[in-house]
Amino acid sequence: MKKKPTLYDVAKVANVSIATVSNVLNHKSEASEKTIQRVNEAIKKLGYSRNESARSLKKGESKLIGLVVPDNNPFFTEILNGIQEECELYDWQVVAAASEESSARQNQLIKLLSAQQVSGIILAPATDTLEIPIDFSSAPIVLIDRELHNAELPIIKADNVEGSYKATKMLLRNGHKRIGLILASPGISTTVQRKQGYIDALKSAQIKADEKLIRYGGDYTGTKAQIDGGYQAVINMMNLPSPPTAFFVTNHLLMIGAVKAIKELRLSIPRDIGFIGFDDHPWQEISDPPFTIVSQPAFEMGRLAVRALNKLKSTGEIVTASLPLQLIIRKSCGTKNVND
Amino acid sequence: MKKKPTLYDVAKVANVSIATVSNVLNHKSEASEKTIQRVNEAIKKLGYSRNESARSLKKGESKLIGLVVPDNNPFFTEILNGIQEECELYDWQVVAAASEESSARQNQLIKLLSAQQVSGIILAPATDTLEIPIDFSSAPIVLIDRELHNAELPIIKADNVEGSYKATKMLLRNGHKRIGLILASPGISTTVQRKQGYIDALKSAQIKADEKLIRYGGDYTGTKAQIDGGYQAVINMMNLPSPPTAFFVTNHLLMIGAVKAIKELRLSIPRDIGFIGFDDHPWQEISDPPFTIVSQPAFEMGRLAVRALNKLKSTGEIVTASLPLQLIIRKSCGTKNVND
Repeated sequence: MKKKPTLYDVAKVANVSIATVSNVLNHKSEASEKTIQRVNEAIKKLGYSRNESARSLKKGESKLIGLVVPDNNPFFTEILNGIQEECELYDWQVVAAASEESSARQNQLIKLLSAQQVSGIILAPATDTLEIPIDFSSAPIVLIDRELHNAELPIIKADNVEGSYKATKMLLRNGHKRIGLILASPGISTTVQRKQGYIDALKSAQIKADEKLIRYGGDYTGTKAQIDGGYQAVINMMNLPSPPTAFFVTNHLLMIGAVKAIKELRLSIPRDIGFIGFDDHPWQEISDPPFTIVSQPAFEMGRLAVRALNKLKSTGEIVTASLPLQLIIRKSCGTKNVND
Repeated sequence: MKKKPTLYDVAKVANVSIATVSNVLNHKSEASEKTIQRVNEAIKKLGYSRNESARSLKKGESKLIGLVVPDNNPFFTEILNGIQEECELYDWQVVAAASEESSARQNQLIKLLSAQQVSGIILAPATDTLEIPIDFSSAPIVLIDRELHNAELPIIKADNVEGSYKATKMLLRNGHKRIGLILASPGISTTVQRKQGYIDALKSAQIKADEKLIRYGGDYTGTKAQIDGGYQAVINMMNLPSPPTAFFVTNHLLMIGAVKAIKELRLSIPRDIGFIGFDDHPWQEISDPPFTIVSQPAFEMGRLAVRALNKLKSTGEIVTASLPLQLIIRKSCGTKNVND
């Protein structure tokens, strides 16, 4: 049987993005006359029919997908954006809910969503252990970002060990030997992996990690608590007899707090203190100095999670993917490039 | 009959926040021993029982509340945070979905959520007209942020006319007579109101608004499109024979684009160009220069919307509230205070 043409095929033939094809199909006003024509020609040529994927849905199922994330920070918002775009393909709608880093609340949300007969759940777990049997949810579950060590589920994650390794290497290359590491909560897989990458990079430079230079931001519910955690970590480490000369700060909110502390101490980045942050955001285009950042492919992770969910539902296959992190080199880490 | 004690009453008696009471009830680890004791004493004293509000829920109803917003920008995320906190009181869980500024998609989401028997829907509409009868949703609807001119529903909004008036006045006070105004999409109530406040403030200074200094950011789906819209608006206006000496930019993403353009033109804020933005965010604590901002009480708006929903469900009352906007004065608008 000939494979049915997808939105992807249409986009490829029309030489436009999936989003544009979707806009044309939804009669949104964004596209130019020319683009609309090109998309319509591609649709005709391929014999694309919009409802093919919708028709394949089982009867009685809703067209809703549930996303359960620990909080509403911008990283998860960007994942949600990717999920929404990909869901266009399947005629699914997305509802999102936050567990606020509580596994009790997370489990309650999964139960509620299952009871509403959602078509599937994408979950970034609050802790690295699922305290309930996997099959307590009637909806299939795909993990995103964070691993569970006691459940075999499809997962789309980022290669945090490698990302952290690259960032630490960059600071070493710029002459830093005492590098402060600021991590989120110790109980989640991403934290463990980011710590590992840091330790590996130091080891490659014959430096033994100093535990006094590794801090957890403390308690991680709420935006303000995370910013405060980053702030306090810098203040504490700068008060050490032998303070760090650079910081690697492993999430967006911790980073805001850390930079705030550095500014209050009247230290200049990168002249007095080298700095690498985590998660790229639009405001970093206008920040001063421009920050070197370990960037996560959050949007792409969201898209792949939807594809993994579709695969799980249609074939039962357990897809796992680990996406590379990108080190975006700007000025805050110093001027020496890793390739110098 | 004696009124049943609420979480508010417990918080008041224990002299802690609602969030803290909720944390203690949920056995989260944030609170100190002392606080836990104080909260438990207050609970005992008042005879508070956690499930009072849950018990009042009609049978067959889910414990889910749906939030439908135009997009996932940080303003709506903060509204969602407020909604989540308030929902603790009613034992409701929140699911959020984005219409992507499409009223067709918005209406589809409302139908889907109704079909899932959510307890209620909080809606920031995509356009200022509801193209379907209000009662097409079996769930009660409360509006947030944006008005509908053809439906009488409870609404929690901000006083955008007044907020915009105050910002424009501040720029006038700092000697600016040609003030560029950058607005979002023309089809929504908040845009109309922000334009009105600007025109009123100019009129109070005997200045007639120049239409060439009022721009809409163009097409508003997606983060990148909005940033580009703010960027282009600045470039276009700075190319006028008589360009503006200051900008008032009325949302967060437009603002990032506008500042990017100003930096590329190598103009210094506030020396060469006065600037006031919209929506306060954590990164503004570390931005350079610190930006003067019209700040919306997004978190509080979210809380009040949940209360309005509860009121609507329990008594049928149509609550409306218009919250004041705050002008947070930092350095980007110039040094003259409105009170000088």
